[in-house]
Amino acid sequence: MRAKVIVTPKAAVLDPQGAAVRDAIRQLGMRDVKSVRIGKYLEIELSADGGETKIRLEQLCRDLLSNPVIEDYQLITE
Amino acid sequence: MRAKVIVTPKAAVLDPQGAAVRDAIRQLGMRDVKSVRIGKYLEIELSADGGETKIRLEQLCRDLLSNPVIEDYQLITE
Repeated sequence: MRAKVIVTPKAAVLDPQGAAVRDAIRQLGMRDVKSVRIGKYLEIELSADGGETKIRLEQLCRDLLSNPVIEDYQLITE
Repeated sequence: MRAKVIVTPKAAVLDPQGAAVRDAIRQLGMRDVKSVRIGKYLEIELSADGGETKIRLEQLCRDLLSNPVIEDYQLITE
């Protein structure tokens, strides 16, 4: 099984890294950029499969891969 | 327009951050994890639209958001 996890800062949380990249893009001449938000992307390769593995991956996203106070995560399994 | 950019280390490039997360996941009891690779995820919001914007976004991915020597990028526009 292959899982993709996207971890992004919550909308209410300041993202200074994203703001810096937004300003850099504007400075390069693309003035129509409204906002940039930066998160993490993880690709996890597993030898296991099935529903139980998915449940354990959800736990993992909550407990290890994201900080639920300031981040949201999105788990995509293939 | 909304664009999502995923930047990942190339397959041949060592990813020590990913290896550390893989080991942490194994230590938490999920022994069936084979590999973890970690990249960046960017969400870009633009007021412009259309083909020219897409071309400029591609340029941006190549020149600013990724290092083509060691990273691959994936641009998804909505």
